[in-house]
Amino acid sequence: MKLFESKKSDDYIIIIGCGRLGANLANTLSDDDGNVLIMDTTKNAFRRLSSNYGGLSIVGDGTDLDALRDAQIEKASAVIAVTNDDNTNIMIAQLARDLFHVDRVIARLYDSERESVYQALGIDTICPAILSAKEVDKMLEKCGKEQIA
Amino acid sequence: MKLFESKKSDDYIIIIGCGRLGANLANTLSDDDGNVLIMDTTKNAFRRLSSNYGGLSIVGDGTDLDALRDAQIEKASAVIAVTNDDNTNIMIAQLARDLFHVDRVIARLYDSERESVYQALGIDTICPAILSAKEVDKMLEKCGKEQIA
Repeated sequence: MKLFESKKSDDYIIIIGCGRLGANLANTLSDDDGNVLIMDTTKNAFRRLSSNYGGLSIVGDGTDLDALRDAQIEKASAVIAVTNDDNTNIMIAQLARDLFHVDRVIARLYDSERESVYQALGIDTICPAILSAKEVDKMLEKCGKEQIA
Repeated sequence: MKLFESKKSDDYIIIIGCGRLGANLANTLSDDDGNVLIMDTTKNAFRRLSSNYGGLSIVGDGTDLDALRDAQIEKASAVIAVTNDDNTNIMIAQLARDLFHVDRVIARLYDSERESVYQALGIDTICPAILSAKEVDKMLEKCGKEQIA
């Protein structure tokens, strides 16, 4: 871990929200030798991190500027906002992008109907319902092809 | 719609649970001219269906055998269990497969740690957190490559 050595780290990633997705990402990115910090408002959420997780975890509110500064957000190459609340995620994404000039900002969005609004704001979004629907579609298609073959 | 003409329809799909994912799937599959039925315990859930939705929607409990028979599950080519509860989804999947001999059964699973158990039971699962984590990973990778290029 060479965290916080240079002004901008090439691979310092901050994840806000340690739910299933946040923890999953943190575990994966830390496995890949990335410098990862995960933040959640409750300490208990960190139970989801694997025992091999090699990054940092801090208790804090991702919409709080001081908490973001504590996480050295200005050095982050990417911020991923995956709390359970769409508005919180979008607010974090906007803070990260507009105030701290983070290059890559991704927000999870439960409500797919609002996706276009956020994309218009220049924020990358991931929508689990749409990804899952595509996956089911792929599974059904594959099944159909197998039956024909 | 040629629903219920033959014993087994080639493309009669039952979706249980009209949350974001269920509604999204129902809208997509009905757009593709599939024969779709969606079931939910509350009528209010059907507000998520688009105005163009061309399938059926019935109020019922997907773990209730009579409700499944009312939906003519024995004629379904696929059953997709996407309620908000993992155990409910898995129970529906098992009923569909073992009792009604549905060829293709897919269950949504929030808890990715139980995925292997269900796959051992021969049930296809989709896990939104894993799909989303993969998507974020892809986005970050693409970003890294763009910076190098």
